[in-house]
Amino acid sequence: MFPFKSNIVLDRTSNRNLYLQLCDQIIGFIKSGKLLPSTKLPGSRRLSEDLKIHRKTVIAAYDELLSQGWIETLPARGTFVNSILPIIKPQHFDPNTAQATKEKKSGFSFIQRPNLTPDLNDYSETGIIKVNDGSPDHRLAPIEEISRVYRNVIKKTYHRKLLTYGPVSGNLELRKILVNYLNQTRGLRIDVDNVFITRGSQMGIYIASQLLLSSKNHIAVGNSNYMTADTTFVDAGGIIERVPVDKYGLNTVALEGLCKTKKITAVFVTSHHHHPTTVTLSAERRMHLLQLAQQFRFAIIEDDYDYDFHYGNAPILPLASNDYNGNVIYIGSFTKIIAPAMRIGYLIAPKDFIDEASKLRKIIDRQGDSLLEQTLAHMIKTGDVQRHCQKVLKIYKTRRDLFCTLLKEKLDAYFDFEIPKGGMAVWIRLNKKYNWDDVVIQCKKQSVELNPEWKRYDNDCSGHNGIRLGFASLNESEIKRVIDCLEKALKMISTS
Amino acid sequence: MFPFKSNIVLDRTSNRNLYLQLCDQIIGFIKSGKLLPSTKLPGSRRLSEDLKIHRKTVIAAYDELLSQGWIETLPARGTFVNSILPIIKPQHFDPNTAQATKEKKSGFSFIQRPNLTPDLNDYSETGIIKVNDGSPDHRLAPIEEISRVYRNVIKKTYHRKLLTYGPVSGNLELRKILVNYLNQTRGLRIDVDNVFITRGSQMGIYIASQLLLSSKNHIAVGNSNYMTADTTFVDAGGIIERVPVDKYGLNTVALEGLCKTKKITAVFVTSHHHHPTTVTLSAERRMHLLQLAQQFRFAIIEDDYDYDFHYGNAPILPLASNDYNGNVIYIGSFTKIIAPAMRIGYLIAPKDFIDEASKLRKIIDRQGDSLLEQTLAHMIKTGDVQRHCQKVLKIYKTRRDLFCTLLKEKLDAYFDFEIPKGGMAVWIRLNKKYNWDDVVIQCKKQSVELNPEWKRYDNDCSGHNGIRLGFASLNESEIKRVIDCLEKALKMISTS
Repeated sequence: MFPFKSNIVLDRTSNRNLYLQLCDQIIGFIKSGKLLPSTKLPGSRRLSEDLKIHRKTVIAAYDELLSQGWIETLPARGTFVNSILPIIKPQHFDPNTAQATKEKKSGFSFIQRPNLTPDLNDYSETGIIKVNDGSPDHRLAPIEEISRVYRNVIKKTYHRKLLTYGPVSGNLELRKILVNYLNQTRGLRIDVDNVFITRGSQMGIYIASQLLLSSKNHIAVGNSNYMTADTTFVDAGGIIERVPVDKYGLNTVALEGLCKTKKITAVFVTSHHHHPTTVTLSAERRMHLLQLAQQFRFAIIEDDYDYDFHYGNAPILPLASNDYNGNVIYIGSFTKIIAPAMRIGYLIAPKDFIDEASKLRKIIDRQGDSLLEQTLAHMIKTGDVQRHCQKVLKIYKTRRDLFCTLLKEKLDAYFDFEIPKGGMAVWIRLNKKYNWDDVVIQCKKQSVELNPEWKRYDNDCSGHNGIRLGFASLNESEIKRVIDCLEKALKMISTS
Repeated sequence: MFPFKSNIVLDRTSNRNLYLQLCDQIIGFIKSGKLLPSTKLPGSRRLSEDLKIHRKTVIAAYDELLSQGWIETLPARGTFVNSILPIIKPQHFDPNTAQATKEKKSGFSFIQRPNLTPDLNDYSETGIIKVNDGSPDHRLAPIEEISRVYRNVIKKTYHRKLLTYGPVSGNLELRKILVNYLNQTRGLRIDVDNVFITRGSQMGIYIASQLLLSSKNHIAVGNSNYMTADTTFVDAGGIIERVPVDKYGLNTVALEGLCKTKKITAVFVTSHHHHPTTVTLSAERRMHLLQLAQQFRFAIIEDDYDYDFHYGNAPILPLASNDYNGNVIYIGSFTKIIAPAMRIGYLIAPKDFIDEASKLRKIIDRQGDSLLEQTLAHMIKTGDVQRHCQKVLKIYKTRRDLFCTLLKEKLDAYFDFEIPKGGMAVWIRLNKKYNWDDVVIQCKKQSVELNPEWKRYDNDCSGHNGIRLGFASLNESEIKRVIDCLEKALKMISTS
């Protein structure tokens, strides 16, 4: 007979009932073929003595197995493994190996996406400064304020309904408030039907890509371009066409030429501060771009994630503010103002596109976090968000000025850069005598981690030697340490 | 000269600065072709008098326009619309029509998805009872508890880092706690590398589909099947193969036959309580299914959203608990226990699949809500979630019993149903003499809204006349009202 006594291990400290543990293990033996169909099981008295447990525990386990169909009782004969179960050849697997198999490797094939980048740890370890490619400083997030408003939102009985399934396109209150907010601050002329709440700009780009680009649709982007947008387009099935970018932004004359040779479905622009080079699209090209969109009936995906961070003159109104023909899909976000983990953004587009976006969103994750959306709506209404934005804008401007001053002072021999008019990063071209990889290695030795290799935005391997260094998330002393570190690293490299 | 005075309308109550309003409107005139390149603009003194604003406001606006490249100043000649701007043929558009265009219709084409369903309002209006197809009662959500823990999480300085970009696969603390929780309660043998945090079961289904099903991959599902899963598979490019479902669940013998005729990439099962019919997959078929998965190397997508809601014997361990060959992708959720809007779920799979899921998630919405995930981790650790689950389980059992008793008592002549062993809905077949549409119309007259038409789960139009009626979200008096309403409706229909 099967050695129950030596094979069953019960853990009295576990949260799972003893009788269920017994059940689980017997099922395991059946499934693995150690207990074959029609095998007789020991009587409850005998098994309880063997395992030193109460007989009622064994009876409960057998009842459970019976009701689940794993065993059967035959009158006057006893309890047996159900005879109708398929016979399994015993797998003499080593539980350790089995676990390793489970952890590591699938027993089926699936689609690998070589274009997508793996998950990295973004949290800084103590003592290490990470220089990102333009993230806000989460230490400035108005988190007590959010927590307080969130709590007040929850307390209101009439907000209780927000806990159940709600509109896929987002909390209605937030959408209404965004209509006013965007019409007033950015010259849009939209209605609540044109607003779709996303989980940050990235989801806007993802959904727009999925709707616009099926296999072999062409999308025009700048050369260089925001890397994650590129991978999102490719993943949706799009073919990327690169258009040169100079100091006036995307070259629209080149784009026009492209449109004449092939059908362009969409054009991606970060009109305010081009990613990665931070240049602003000139007035002339803005108009030309809108004209082309109308003429060739393509969609403009305008990623304006940076709108709120303009340090000199007033921010330039987005293309969307002059879109009279429904060509612009306008994407923005609050994650840069508040905190990256507070994932609320928006996608503004003609109603027919929003309706389709909602249908897709429904199968992606059903809806956003309605309580957090309601909280944000409240904070825009009271002006808290706008005040916070003004506050951090001043801080980031100071940081930009310090960063650029020190760069010019201490590293002029190595770098070429322009002071960015806005945003959270400087676009720096390293003198081609040097190699970024060497700089990264030398900096790492001094506990400063620069952008990873795949974030250099050299999409077509032209060797431009440019990189984005984010200044906004670094405080004054961190900026000084980073510049010191770069200086030491480059001196080391140039003398070796 | 262009009539600035009559065309410019400044709103002193707006949040946007007067000078920016002036800018915006002049840009608008340029973009729409009303002000052509090289047109002379009025002097600042003259315009300030015309518009009755301070001269400094006009100067600020001109400075802004100059810096954005819309206008140019020629020494001793004055200010002009930039001569290098493209000449636009004036669009004599009616602002009202233009706005309507913007709201409604895109000036580009995009992919329409006829298989996806539109966004409906899920919130109940006052006085109307909505009978869903098996949602929890959000009125029972432990919202004060969540709010309190959330606040405590936020207060801790070492949680501040959670506000920045974090791991795509989810909060590490929650993943660690889920390893213990799932290993203990469901007999899994997983490690933290096998856990991926989603925004509810639906995102698990979406991501699994995107990774498994490219164009023309076949996925086997029950007939009938959970509608939203079907649409998610089709959207990913999958071809659906329907396998019969009887009172023991998915017919695995039929599945085996199917596997022999074509390559099946994945099989979707809700093993615990089949959706929509609520039957449980028998022990025999569970084993057979795992055997087939190994033999034919397909993935089993096990959607176990309902695991925690089993009213009779203990819940049956998932297929994933006996997956020694890495065939099972196990999907679960906390949205049913806590609240639909608190969108946290998980996907459990071999590490290679999880890595790929993370790469995809990165371009969908970058990451989940790390503060909410940390909050949930804490609530599982303290047992709050488990206690809440026990509490609502009792309430739902009482509701199920009342609902089924009344159904049997009052509506036996019209309906055929079995008492579900778990879950939040009863699968009811209406006598084929009657038509659900008539019942829906009659009920609506009494302010009771039944499931919409497309939720009848008649995937292959067999006319089974079945429907899911959710009891869990209805309290005692609401259940009585719904049964009364059904009774009246059916009496009305059968005598007419």
